Amino acid sequence: MEALLARRARSARSSVIRDLLRLTERPGVLSLAGGLPAPATFPVDRIAASAAASFGRVGATGPVALQYGPTEGDAELRELVASRHGAGSAQVLITAGSQQGLDLLARVLIDPGDVVVVEEPGYVGAIQALRASEPQLVGIEVDADGMRTDLLEAELVAGLRPKLVYTVPNFQNPTGAVLSPDRRAHLGALADRYGFVLVEDDPYGELYFDTPPPPSLRSFGANVVTLGSSSKILAPGLRVGWLVAPEALIGPTVRLKQAADLHTSSLSQRIVAELLGDAAFLAAHLPAARSVYRVQAAALSEALPLGCVAAPCRGGLFLWVTTDPAADTDRLLEIAVDHGVAFVPGSAFRLDGSTHATMRLSYATLDPAGLATAGSRLAAALDHMAAIARQSSLGGVRSSR
Amino acid sequence: MEALLARRARSARSSVIRDLLRLTERPGVLSLAGGLPAPATFPVDRIAASAAASFGRVGATGPVALQYGPTEGDAELRELVASRHGAGSAQVLITAGSQQGLDLLARVLIDPGDVVVVEEPGYVGAIQALRASEPQLVGIEVDADGMRTDLLEAELVAGLRPKLVYTVPNFQNPTGAVLSPDRRAHLGALADRYGFVLVEDDPYGELYFDTPPPPSLRSFGANVVTLGSSSKILAPGLRVGWLVAPEALIGPTVRLKQAADLHTSSLSQRIVAELLGDAAFLAAHLPAARSVYRVQAAALSEALPLGCVAAPCRGGLFLWVTTDPAADTDRLLEIAVDHGVAFVPGSAFRLDGSTHATMRLSYATLDPAGLATAGSRLAAALDHMAAIARQSSLGGVRSSR
Repeated sequence: MEALLARRARSARSSVIRDLLRLTERPGVLSLAGGLPAPATFPVDRIAASAAASFGRVGATGPVALQYGPTEGDAELRELVASRHGAGSAQVLITAGSQQGLDLLARVLIDPGDVVVVEEPGYVGAIQALRASEPQLVGIEVDADGMRTDLLEAELVAGLRPKLVYTVPNFQNPTGAVLSPDRRAHLGALADRYGFVLVEDDPYGELYFDTPPPPSLRSFGANVVTLGSSSKILAPGLRVGWLVAPEALIGPTVRLKQAADLHTSSLSQRIVAELLGDAAFLAAHLPAARSVYRVQAAALSEALPLGCVAAPCRGGLFLWVTTDPAADTDRLLEIAVDHGVAFVPGSAFRLDGSTHATMRLSYATLDPAGLATAGSRLAAALDHMAAIARQSSLGGVRSSR
Repeated sequence: MEALLARRARSARSSVIRDLLRLTERPGVLSLAGGLPAPATFPVDRIAASAAASFGRVGATGPVALQYGPTEGDAELRELVASRHGAGSAQVLITAGSQQGLDLLARVLIDPGDVVVVEEPGYVGAIQALRASEPQLVGIEVDADGMRTDLLEAELVAGLRPKLVYTVPNFQNPTGAVLSPDRRAHLGALADRYGFVLVEDDPYGELYFDTPPPPSLRSFGANVVTLGSSSKILAPGLRVGWLVAPEALIGPTVRLKQAADLHTSSLSQRIVAELLGDAAFLAAHLPAARSVYRVQAAALSEALPLGCVAAPCRGGLFLWVTTDPAADTDRLLEIAVDHGVAFVPGSAFRLDGSTHATMRLSYATLDPAGLATAGSRLAAALDHMAAIARQSSLGGVRSSR
């Protein structure tokens, strides 16, 4: 059977990181690894009411929440998404989460060997979705203001011709960086000048602590595709996201989605349409969700082990932490899991998987008490690692006698 | 933007058929074209109750119907599917409908240029999903006993080496044929001997009128993947299907699904798990659904225009009809839409799109009264077409004078 696999399937072997992360599922382990949104932010009663109401909505071919629907998505939901993004509804495709949006885009745009630019460090799931189309991936560094567009421009000037550039401009995964307004303008202009598609993945933009992020990249260029999602503002289990793109891209993407899964769950779409269409609900719900994450981010920041430094965090779900003294966080993860805590080591966010003294700590899932305990366990793991290092250096001295 | 599209997206242009079928969406048109299941068969109240109950089910990371879940699928649903198919749950992947199962399989197994065998006439959606992987498609004729495995064997003996063979063994789309037990054994043996993956797509198997279809192809060979779906037995809008495969195929398919959409809607999976787990409910529901389709199939058969002959129909959703005198059903569709009725012409089910005197009439969606009206309109369209033919032959005589 193995011999029958296609080239891309044979190459998508289980990574070291995936094996490491399997450790984090051990019972008793407090996980700072996942990006599972805080269940406290799920509007459960409102979703339940909207599900119940949806079954009574009957169209020409039966209950719309249960019947097949258009591949493009529920018409009302498309309208709502379009108006949130200042677009026309013909520019909107409803997807099974923004992950599917990226997968479809990659399949529509990328031939094997095409150049695709991603952020480094950058979102693992995106890299995985892109890799299925077998591109040549090129990483551009991210700093406190997001992607280093000066480095990208230098590459472009030197001859790099990407088909697609992928960025998470708001509260980037994993660094939490917000792409500055200047760099947004720069990136939009580069997309127009060099003719690549600029993909803006924005699952976290609504989850700011104090200040909303700068305007969407769509304000700064014509070749922009925005991926959005209800996963972090409503509930991820519904699997409803969307893609807002120049109309010329929607047709081929819809045709591929039809082949891929016909359409996104009608029931989930009805629920999301009702909630996104309820301005009064959102006006209360979103600030409440932001507040949950603000509190949890503060709790985790306070619980950080001595010497660990977090990058500035103004929203989203993650703290990006550097250990001092520099520790190999791949190795640290193994020790941490024995101490009952898990995180994602920095190497997971690098194209070459090289190890680093960095790690991504999610404050999304645990409550403040859990985050405090996780922080103590992480401190114990760092101490343990330091003790091992001292012992082995002593051992080294002994054996050299 | 057009210039940026990948090769597969550029080649997936809108087909003539797709343009024709758009006509069927005109208001006032009674559609025998779609495969939309009868809303009368949707267990709406049971689904609503199960949705309501699902929100109260809270796991370690919140309500399971709303939180991210495992890519493989809800553990309980996998168990249920496994036991329905006499498989282990490690052989089961939950998908967004069986359409996604086929798309993932194609991506995992097919490199551009690989040979893939499909049925002719055969399911358009499958052909579309397979085409995205750019295979060389080879059609094998279907007769009243399903795929002509003797013709397939002749091709194999002559050197054809398919990677994948796709079949709808039960109440085939579009012909309604049931693959005979002898041919099942033959096909399973060919798969084992020639080392191809045999994909059995079985959305309609439970919808028999009197007699259940013969055993699954899994009984006849080791290289078999079964695609199943809740769409026709519960409700298609939930988008829950599954893939039962040799374990060696599950790993790569799960990795690709993770990149494609992370996982299938948690809420939909909970609903389907509760309904498939309720034996008493199924024991009442499935016979009721079968009865609806038996009645509707009879109503459409009786309403067929004079001279139209339907293939034997023992289950499923479709009548496969041949017109006599032979009419070009592509042309007939245009006329039929003007008469307020639509169907899918035979050419849609052929790899080369060649026209035929055949058409697929779905009795799934309309009630018996609607089916009777649709039949009369179709008769009027055939009369109209015959009148045009007479006129143009007269015209032909006139102009030759």
